[in-house]
Amino acid sequence: MENLMKRKSYNEMPCPIAQCLELIGEWWSMLIIRDAFRGLKRFDEFQKSLGIAPNILTRRLNDLVDSRILERQNYGESTKRYEYVLSKQGKDLYPVMVVMFKWGDKYAPPKGIKSHVINIKTGEIAEPILIDKRTGHEMIFDEYKATFVPNN
Amino acid sequence: MENLMKRKSYNEMPCPIAQCLELIGEWWSMLIIRDAFRGLKRFDEFQKSLGIAPNILTRRLNDLVDSRILERQNYGESTKRYEYVLSKQGKDLYPVMVVMFKWGDKYAPPKGIKSHVINIKTGEIAEPILIDKRTGHEMIFDEYKATFVPNN
Repeated sequence: MENLMKRKSYNEMPCPIAQCLELIGEWWSMLIIRDAFRGLKRFDEFQKSLGIAPNILTRRLNDLVDSRILERQNYGESTKRYEYVLSKQGKDLYPVMVVMFKWGDKYAPPKGIKSHVINIKTGEIAEPILIDKRTGHEMIFDEYKATFVPNN
Repeated sequence: MENLMKRKSYNEMPCPIAQCLELIGEWWSMLIIRDAFRGLKRFDEFQKSLGIAPNILTRRLNDLVDSRILERQNYGESTKRYEYVLSKQGKDLYPVMVVMFKWGDKYAPPKGIKSHVINIKTGEIAEPILIDKRTGHEMIFDEYKATFVPNN
């Protein structure tokens, strides 16, 4: 019931945030996408990382392929074995991952562990911030708003 | 069952993204947070915007208060009427909203509507990008990685 409501309402909402949520599909799917960014590709790897039932993982991987966030690729000689890799569209979710990482690290840091995002080449800890490219200023919530203009 | 699995696994994962998802709680809750950024404050306003059952909305608002993303404030003379406003911690989710907005607008633009984030003061359309403040460069996924260091 709730799922039906969700589907219906998301689609009807003229809001890109709702559309983004709609395409990602489910809460857990964010962690599949995270793992794809970490380089996991195979069903068994995702299952080991996430510890979810195979039928649920299958459905979510399929949904992410349908949403064009993941691409299914054959590997080895069999045509029945697949790897799942991020599409261009999927890779463009990287900023979502980083800003969630930063927020989670600030407000609910995992116990006993310090997390960083580092630049692979230099090894330096990154300081991710969201800026408005036009002005170079950090985007602060009360200085911006969304607008919606009919486009017919 | 799935919910139990989710709770268990999220908490055990030493990952700030998982922790962020854990605190936000549920998929739908992202839209409550979105509406709070839009300035909605009262139960009726959220319900009208989201079209969900009152008992579900009540639970999600309570969860967001427990997670310290929303704050409950009395309004008017009654002590039984509340408004829900973003805490500092909640406001810090703004970059998550913006990057989801940008992605949704790029890959699944709502039909018949063109969406923008604009600078309120200047009216100019913003171009949100995520940069590494240390270098000023846009953060590209294959140039960065997460690291986890024991912190005992």
